[in-house]
Amino acid sequence: MKSTATIKTLVIGGAGYIGAHLVPQLIATGRHVTVLGRSLTPRYELPNEATYISGDFGQRDLIGSLLANHQEGIHLAYATVPNTSFDNPLADLLENLPPTVQLFSEAAERGTKLILMSSGGTVYGEANELPILETHPTKPISPYGVTKLTLENYAYLYAVTHGLKFVCIRPGNAYGAGQRPFVGQGFISTALASAMTGKPIRIFGQQGTIRDYLYVSDLASGIVSALQHGQLTETYNIGSGVGLSNLDVIEAIKVLLKEVGCSVKVENLPARAFDVKTNVLDSTKLETHTGWRPKVEFEEGLARTYDWLKAMEK
Amino acid sequence: MKSTATIKTLVIGGAGYIGAHLVPQLIATGRHVTVLGRSLTPRYELPNEATYISGDFGQRDLIGSLLANHQEGIHLAYATVPNTSFDNPLADLLENLPPTVQLFSEAAERGTKLILMSSGGTVYGEANELPILETHPTKPISPYGVTKLTLENYAYLYAVTHGLKFVCIRPGNAYGAGQRPFVGQGFISTALASAMTGKPIRIFGQQGTIRDYLYVSDLASGIVSALQHGQLTETYNIGSGVGLSNLDVIEAIKVLLKEVGCSVKVENLPARAFDVKTNVLDSTKLETHTGWRPKVEFEEGLARTYDWLKAMEK
Repeated sequence: MKSTATIKTLVIGGAGYIGAHLVPQLIATGRHVTVLGRSLTPRYELPNEATYISGDFGQRDLIGSLLANHQEGIHLAYATVPNTSFDNPLADLLENLPPTVQLFSEAAERGTKLILMSSGGTVYGEANELPILETHPTKPISPYGVTKLTLENYAYLYAVTHGLKFVCIRPGNAYGAGQRPFVGQGFISTALASAMTGKPIRIFGQQGTIRDYLYVSDLASGIVSALQHGQLTETYNIGSGVGLSNLDVIEAIKVLLKEVGCSVKVENLPARAFDVKTNVLDSTKLETHTGWRPKVEFEEGLARTYDWLKAMEK
Repeated sequence: MKSTATIKTLVIGGAGYIGAHLVPQLIATGRHVTVLGRSLTPRYELPNEATYISGDFGQRDLIGSLLANHQEGIHLAYATVPNTSFDNPLADLLENLPPTVQLFSEAAERGTKLILMSSGGTVYGEANELPILETHPTKPISPYGVTKLTLENYAYLYAVTHGLKFVCIRPGNAYGAGQRPFVGQGFISTALASAMTGKPIRIFGQQGTIRDYLYVSDLASGIVSALQHGQLTETYNIGSGVGLSNLDVIEAIKVLLKEVGCSVKVENLPARAFDVKTNVLDSTKLETHTGWRPKVEFEEGLARTYDWLKAMEK
């Protein structure tokens, strides 16, 4: 631990659900962690060892001074999700691109190493081959996917022209304890909460979609692995490598809830133009470069999510 | 001609140097051409048959009503060049992306077919293989290249989700009569004008760069070919397929100017981080799909440019 005892890591947007899993893992490596969030107080509970700062990472002076005091930055903040990005592509563009390009510029100037959270679920678009390798063509069909891909391109540009040190990760669909239901993203949390409260589980299209669901603590350990052992300027998928359809998920929910006697109903809504049909990621590169492996099996992750939702109900 | 006699084509940013070559070719196909430009009067002379409208294509009402009255739009407007984009990446982003994404949205809504002018010289980044095919990876190293690539991605997104009809072209380095020297882009015009006025020709880096120089009337005919015969949602390189180094160009200038006795001096400036070393495009796809061929040999194009610069001096 001693060798990393002095590393200071800034987690931008780290007081949310992913940050709640990531920050303790960062602290466990001996890092000093500062979390920057927009709320006055962190939305999720953070370890006492972490320092919380309330502010907007788009403010150049603020982010500049924070980056100057940290050797590493992890960029979790994003103003949109695929759903809202589709409703307003210009807002998605204007809220996400300028502050993040500015972040790259400030980080490059100060030598701060960045982890860029891209999106393995959207940047590839419809897959030609499964599971998807990092070399797969990138043809996103949601504005969210376009802006994430654009940020990858800006990060590369700043690496080549200004020496930005960054590692790009493309995660699959994170799920798990802490993911709030009914907020427009997060199928598993919403499906579980629907079943628990007698609401129908909504599926877009007759068949729904196939996704690579990754338990959030495995995503967090993937981020830590990429930060510690990932190669600069490289891009890494982080996924389970397993594709589950909406119906697969619903079957697992039925099994999980059988003992408590919940009935599970399904409602089919029209398919959404911005949803790719199938997304399953090949994370061999991250595994080979860093030794990372996902640990939480789907049934276990589902049970943990259920337990969290149950606790939240009270 | 009769079959296209009623097609109305809007050329956005068409009163500049490329538009001056393109608009007459469009009129020659029987199209009715409207040119939208930001100046009160067109910067370059347009044929009498063309209608000029002064305005900003970023104004949603204006562009919406124009697109509603035209079956085709050609998007030549861009607020930046690689050089200025590098000086201010945020301005490049904010000035180019929002109005063009809005253009895609408006065009999709009205069924107007668009030609998107991307950039074969910048979107690929440093080439792995020469000449560069459209399937080459895209790793731009200038902000200009990133925003051009981002617009390609938005156009594709709007095609898949909103039915936008578009053809994307990636031109090489256009040069020729009408290209003003000393404005931060256009090596050939600036090099010629330098030699003609006794100034040293400036080269960035000891070796300079290798570029695919395409005479502007060949670019214009490539745009017309892509408009008439290009496949929707496809991307086409438009280049000469010939790579010329700065020194190759200077040798050709020396030959051209020998009779008038100009002396040619060279000044080496530091290499620029945002210049790829080599860019040569493979345009076989456009040739196969549309029958387009470049017609103007480099020596001929250089002589025409020289003649235009001489006439401008007077």
